[in-house]
Amino acid sequence: MADLDLIEGVGLLAAALTTYSFLPQVYKTWKTKDVSAFSLTTFTLFFVGIVCWLIYGIYKESLSMILANSITMASSFVILLLIIKYRKP
Amino acid sequence: MADLDLIEGVGLLAAALTTYSFLPQVYKTWKTKDVSAFSLTTFTLFFVGIVCWLIYGIYKESLSMILANSITMASSFVILLLIIKYRKP
Repeated sequence: MADLDLIEGVGLLAAALTTYSFLPQVYKTWKTKDVSAFSLTTFTLFFVGIVCWLIYGIYKESLSMILANSITMASSFVILLLIIKYRKP
Repeated sequence: MADLDLIEGVGLLAAALTTYSFLPQVYKTWKTKDVSAFSLTTFTLFFVGIVCWLIYGIYKESLSMILANSITMASSFVILLLIIKYRKP
């Protein structure tokens, strides 16, 4: 049981880190409008992937997946919009 | 069963998309060495988060989680190294 608690703690830490991690990028990109270095392909595929994870989480009735992927979907959507708005053709 | 297959298909698509998505960014950053727009905090936290997901996947004996997070760990590690190497202090 102690092992299970520890490993579930690692899982929750993983979810918290990968979900929270995009927020500093959203803030920086929002402020600087510097998007030249970003791959549009990467952020498009990542956003679609997160939408799929969210759909999967909803069907699996997993609150953790729904919460984590909703936040990541929102932050990656903002980054994607900023890339599309500020990139040079 | 058809519903289960469909939703597992969405889950596999999600895993494939979020795993593959970082490769165009690795390629672009490797070529251009342009890292000014990246948040070092974001990529550090994301990398640590993916390492935690990998540990979680190993304990859960989930081949999908191990495969997907190994690839994402490698690609996010390369991006992180490039950011540290080429960023201006």
